Amino acid sequence: MTPSPLPTVMIEPLVRMALLEDLGRAGDLTTDAIVPAAHRATTVLVARQPGVVAGLDLARLAFQLIDPAIEMRVERGDGAALAPGDVIATISGPARGILTAERVALNLLCRLSGIATATASVVAAVRDTRTDIVCTRKTTPGLRAIEKYAVRVGGGSNHRFGLDDAVLIKDNHVAIAGSVTEALKRAKSGVGHLVKIELEVDTLVLLDNMNPETLTKAVAMVAGRAVTEASGRITPATAPSIAATGVDLISIGWLTHSVSVLDIGLDFKN
Amino acid sequence: MTPSPLPTVMIEPLVRMALLEDLGRAGDLTTDAIVPAAHRATTVLVARQPGVVAGLDLARLAFQLIDPAIEMRVERGDGAALAPGDVIATISGPARGILTAERVALNLLCRLSGIATATASVVAAVRDTRTDIVCTRKTTPGLRAIEKYAVRVGGGSNHRFGLDDAVLIKDNHVAIAGSVTEALKRAKSGVGHLVKIELEVDTLVLLDNMNPETLTKAVAMVAGRAVTEASGRITPATAPSIAATGVDLISIGWLTHSVSVLDIGLDFKN
Amino acid sequence: MTPSPLPTVMIEPLVRMALLEDLGRAGDLTTDAIVPAAHRATTVLVARQPGVVAGLDLARLAFQLIDPAIEMRVERGDGAALAPGDVIATISGPARGILTAERVALNLLCRLSGIATATASVVAAVRDTRTDIVCTRKTTPGLRAIEKYAVRVGGGSNHRFGLDDAVLIKDNHVAIAGSVTEALKRAKSGVGHLVKIELEVDTLVLLDNMNPETLTKAVAMVAGRAVTEASGRITPATAPSIAATGVDLISIGWLTHSVSVLDIGLDFKN
Amino acid sequence: MTPSPLPTVMIEPLVRMALLEDLGRAGDLTTDAIVPAAHRATTVLVARQPGVVAGLDLARLAFQLIDPAIEMRVERGDGAALAPGDVIATISGPARGILTAERVALNLLCRLSGIATATASVVAAVRDTRTDIVCTRKTTPGLRAIEKYAVRVGGGSNHRFGLDDAVLIKDNHVAIAGSVTEALKRAKSGVGHLVKIELEVDTLVLLDNMNPETLTKAVAMVAGRAVTEASGRITPATAPSIAATGVDLISIGWLTHSVSVLDIGLDFKN
Amino acid sequence: MTPSPLPTVMIEPLVRMALLEDLGRAGDLTTDAIVPAAHRATTVLVARQPGVVAGLDLARLAFQLIDPAIEMRVERGDGAALAPGDVIATISGPARGILTAERVALNLLCRLSGIATATASVVAAVRDTRTDIVCTRKTTPGLRAIEKYAVRVGGGSNHRFGLDDAVLIKDNHVAIAGSVTEALKRAKSGVGHLVKIELEVDTLVLLDNMNPETLTKAVAMVAGRAVTEASGRITPATAPSIAATGVDLISIGWLTHSVSVLDIGLDFKN
Amino acid sequence: MTPSPLPTVMIEPLVRMALLEDLGRAGDLTTDAIVPAAHRATTVLVARQPGVVAGLDLARLAFQLIDPAIEMRVERGDGAALAPGDVIATISGPARGILTAERVALNLLCRLSGIATATASVVAAVRDTRTDIVCTRKTTPGLRAIEKYAVRVGGGSNHRFGLDDAVLIKDNHVAIAGSVTEALKRAKSGVGHLVKIELEVDTLVLLDNMNPETLTKAVAMVAGRAVTEASGRITPATAPSIAATGVDLISIGWLTHSVSVLDIGLDFKN
Repeated sequence: MTPSPLPTVMIEPLVRMALLEDLGRAGDLTTDAIVPAAHRATTVLVARQPGVVAGLDLARLAFQLIDPAIEMRVERGDGAALAPGDVIATISGPARGILTAERVALNLLCRLSGIATATASVVAAVRDTRTDIVCTRKTTPGLRAIEKYAVRVGGGSNHRFGLDDAVLIKDNHVAIAGSVTEALKRAKSGVGHLVKIELEVDTLVLLDNMNPETLTKAVAMVAGRAVTEASGRITPATAPSIAATGVDLISIGWLTHSVSVLDIGLDFKN
Repeated sequence: MTPSPLPTVMIEPLVRMALLEDLGRAGDLTTDAIVPAAHRATTVLVARQPGVVAGLDLARLAFQLIDPAIEMRVERGDGAALAPGDVIATISGPARGILTAERVALNLLCRLSGIATATASVVAAVRDTRTDIVCTRKTTPGLRAIEKYAVRVGGGSNHRFGLDDAVLIKDNHVAIAGSVTEALKRAKSGVGHLVKIELEVDTLVLLDNMNPETLTKAVAMVAGRAVTEASGRITPATAPSIAATGVDLISIGWLTHSVSVLDIGLDFKN
Repeated sequence: MTPSPLPTVMIEPLVRMALLEDLGRAGDLTTDAIVPAAHRATTVLVARQPGVVAGLDLARLAFQLIDPAIEMRVERGDGAALAPGDVIATISGPARGILTAERVALNLLCRLSGIATATASVVAAVRDTRTDIVCTRKTTPGLRAIEKYAVRVGGGSNHRFGLDDAVLIKDNHVAIAGSVTEALKRAKSGVGHLVKIELEVDTLVLLDNMNPETLTKAVAMVAGRAVTEASGRITPATAPSIAATGVDLISIGWLTHSVSVLDIGLDFKN
Repeated sequence: MTPSPLPTVMIEPLVRMALLEDLGRAGDLTTDAIVPAAHRATTVLVARQPGVVAGLDLARLAFQLIDPAIEMRVERGDGAALAPGDVIATISGPARGILTAERVALNLLCRLSGIATATASVVAAVRDTRTDIVCTRKTTPGLRAIEKYAVRVGGGSNHRFGLDDAVLIKDNHVAIAGSVTEALKRAKSGVGHLVKIELEVDTLVLLDNMNPETLTKAVAMVAGRAVTEASGRITPATAPSIAATGVDLISIGWLTHSVSVLDIGLDFKN
Repeated sequence: MTPSPLPTVMIEPLVRMALLEDLGRAGDLTTDAIVPAAHRATTVLVARQPGVVAGLDLARLAFQLIDPAIEMRVERGDGAALAPGDVIATISGPARGILTAERVALNLLCRLSGIATATASVVAAVRDTRTDIVCTRKTTPGLRAIEKYAVRVGGGSNHRFGLDDAVLIKDNHVAIAGSVTEALKRAKSGVGHLVKIELEVDTLVLLDNMNPETLTKAVAMVAGRAVTEASGRITPATAPSIAATGVDLISIGWLTHSVSVLDIGLDFKN
Repeated sequence: MTPSPLPTVMIEPLVRMALLEDLGRAGDLTTDAIVPAAHRATTVLVARQPGVVAGLDLARLAFQLIDPAIEMRVERGDGAALAPGDVIATISGPARGILTAERVALNLLCRLSGIATATASVVAAVRDTRTDIVCTRKTTPGLRAIEKYAVRVGGGSNHRFGLDDAVLIKDNHVAIAGSVTEALKRAKSGVGHLVKIELEVDTLVLLDNMNPETLTKAVAMVAGRAVTEASGRITPATAPSIAATGVDLISIGWLTHSVSVLDIGLDFKN
């Protein structure tokens, strides 16, 4: 199921900022000098690689904030699988605006599509298991909301959005508390019983960077009494064996911090 | 030569925004519940991979904006080559603040170090040529200034910072103008002779995505009358043969849009 | 007379901020999961208590910033007296947007209506006197402009909007100056004769927290040579006897700092 | 247990905005005209009512953003019970800055202390039960983080911080879905199993606005299989009988939307 | 009397913005390339023209936001009369920061000093009369607070700071109302008796652009029953004859909209 | 050729800020009290002086941000030569909005038109030479983009937009480096060969503040090997003799820092 789009009010500040960053103090010198104001163009967003598209609302906003007369007709919406050559959307209107907004629109669209594509590839690799793929807080500063959205578009789930929406006890917290028991006790008394508490275990029951055999044992020990989550550089190739251990979640940082963009281009049709 | 650091006034808004994005509406639930306010810690930033570090000023600012009592002593500054296990910096002070700022500091530091590392690997591959490595406008929205800085740390140069600091005539501009000659004429009359004008040639003299043989011919044809620049998915492996053609610049988008983070961790020493 | 509405440019930043505060980093999880995008609804804003409505422009903006397709038809505009069950406005359009914006719209509308209602009750209590009801600078941080607007809707007037639009000499200023005379002298020479100068008297002629008898004497002593103002926890019950002393103004902090919201609900009609 | 203070980076934007709102375009005309720049003062924040103090960090920031030379020594920190006349803190330094920042500091401090005081009174009323007091999303626009903090200071807990940190299915969602079962099904498939799902029941098992007898039956029917929560205009007087039903949570909107400020004054000692 | 300085919290956003505008996306290329980080300098701000200095706090902030290690010792503070060659302040510290902040500091300082100088010249021209010199709302967008401050430094007074701090009835308002009487009536009933009401008369009693003879008659007709104000391109040369008419105020737009900067330079001493 | 307009996304933040600065915390008291909401007006922007108009997009935005129902029909667009009495544009719609936005619209329009007019007068003075007129970084803080645009409208060119878009070596840089040669060497190695490097010469070959004879010799010495630029208080009167020396550029700071506004008024037609 495709996730709901983020409301415009959430993405507009980011798109405005990205445009201002690119326009600088004088705007698009090249286009302004060469392209007549009255020149109109019809262009298409075309996939140059197979993948999953995400971020069309941001691209549309980039074009329309530069010139509200630009129209975008979506052929393959967020979540659609793309083959090379597939037309994603048709963008038409004043050529100046299309050229001026092009780079910002593509920077956003290619990045989010890259995240959705990578997520989808791991999700597909564990399709026959009960394991969910989740992302982490290792997101690009300023882009967390849209990168997590792209993970959802790719079929993944989102772990914590920030430091404030769950307790996640890590090894350093345990070390400072003195024991897992004490850390849990403090967490429970500190946040009341409304906040979800998670424990990152990587000493005794090492879910972090464990091999599949150990992981299987760990999952068996937990025996459904808690949600189990594996992490540690898991790829589409290694994900199936990890998922086969019965772990509930596989958490993957590189989906947001080290992913390649999906190559999408803007072609002029006239 | 290591580039000058960016003034704090340029990076502070980004670091503040990244912290607020992570703190959300309630702050660090876990740390606040578990770690006593008076607990102090000494921690080290440690390289887990070989690479080049970049972004220490941003990391420091992340810690100090959370708690000004946190001190950071740099052992290997921006531009230093790292071996796995190398200590980059020692961070000491109130443990709460260190834990709360950790993820934002690492998100910034690992990303910029990833860019510097990738840049350095390509720069090293063309070390014996006269070719410079440059980045593009394919940067992360909101991070252009710091990503271009990281490219400089890695030994690369920066191409246009935005639409407003040079004319760059691309194929679509030429197509709309009707000819290269007309596009150049309009550009010259439009912006006066203070603005640098560049021409992206990818039809007759195809520097974009050309193979080395064609590229060599193209460079010979230009014969020093212009700065030549090659682009198109160039990697450390392919860069030497491209540089051997005598091209002035190799422009690489993936340095900023598809790079992997450098793995750097924060280890508690006490 | 109903006061003029505040221009959209003044209220939009606040409404955007309030929406972002509520949407967080993932938007309305509940509505996005349950309500189909195509589902449309017709809803009504209904008074659950008697009172005076204020803030409809802010409510409309909350809905329309979430989805411009939402329409609001006002039945009883700002300043209208409400009986329980009265329909204030009909809001129709995509159900998702209506549900997502509902809480922010109500938070703004109920608060401002609460202020207007409280103001109107005190204004009504002194209707037969020449005394005006004014609010203070004890407003909610960030909401001063709209809270003062709500006081105007309720029939009250606004005292100083900030530290910069009049001189108001308080007891601590007098104490530092050494005497009322000296404080007035400094004020007059310091700000020129364009700025209104007011004196808060609470030692000899104690208008602040005085009982009605003393207040009557004080007003008589002033004899029209100055505008007199009484303050100090005045309620609809005590206002008539205070106004009967002939005081020009009654200044009431609780209208903005301790008022109850007016209970207004959003009912779905289909 | 007193909750951790919010990091300065979270509260500084709000305090700056509140100061600018009060300073307007010319600053503090009165103080600038009357008080010599060299005049120093020692002042105390004094409780004029019994209550619980909250928000001292915001007050300190207000003073120090106006003049970093102002010092604040806290006598009774956030969470302390106050009797009338109790000194909360001593503030000393340049008199100008103290006078200029006074109103903003008090507006923040009195509001948050009012919330903490009201929360504490309800918490005390259910002290001998297992019921927790929680606040809602009916907070002041822009102040959600600090108002929820004040509820924690008063001994309460925080329910959802926004639309994005849990699913809360209300009657309108159920109506649109067609049934509770369908709404739950959609929610579970829409958000994955990481997000907490809550159901607001007010038809068959009416926890919202139920009387204690019905509530007792409802709690018995749930029998621990879910967290139960009662809401609907609950006050310190009515809370004990509600808590006696065995309900897990009592949710109270008026703690943040209709609370009175706690009266705290700033007295000059010299 | 020199006016009080504006609090830092009021001027810091403007100075930050001005620095970012100048630093762009890469900072000070020239200084970073040429000046060693360890190089320290001592420099002086020197008057190149006679005038009155204003804006030293903004200049200091520009330097210190670039590098907190830069120190500024003021020799002639805001309001001081300058002769060519006079040293205004000594600025010492890291040479890089001084060079990087120089232009922004001078842009602010020279503009405000230009306004103070122009104001002082008109104030001096009417020194022997009872007429005050006031500025208007014809200020530079974004700089109103500091330009009005500079007028105060020059000995002038400030008229309205914005549309919201007094009623000023102009000819178009009168035309729409139908008559002066009706306009005044509406104003009085619309804003209550706390807001000052002014009337710009330029039909019958034409104070705007009147010659001195007519103006004298007009002032006589008013006979002290109102504050009279003359406007219309008044210069130091024409001001004395205008003031001699007995008018209370001379309002001058060009003090803020068409003034020349005062030439102040930054000289390196080592 | 008229330069391209700046995209709305670049100018909207400035216009919003200017409106908020003028509206303050209560909006347009006068207009709200006197002008009925339904009153409509037709008004014209009229030149009161000869000049060149610039900034109509900013004026339109000021009106439409206050009330989208206001329409502006341009008769003489940016770059048009104006004679006194010429109608620049017709603005019609709700009278309240027109009056409320009038001052901000005129503040922007008159300032930019003043800059365009001054630029055009110098450009005309050197019309028969090959010399270009350029502006500097001595712009109003916050207005650099639009002031540089106004220079382009007047026929001038823009020099550096900020510290980051070219290297400009000044005397202090040379002094710190020890010699011009060393400064150039550091600049070249520091910024790579993509960044333009300029040298401000004012010792041996003194282009800054030189008289025409010396300047002619200097230009001859350079002999086309570099772009030459003269600066130093050049006016329309002195520009022709400077241009006659053959210098490429004349750089003029007063075009942006000390220019007079062009007098443009808003007249009501009904």
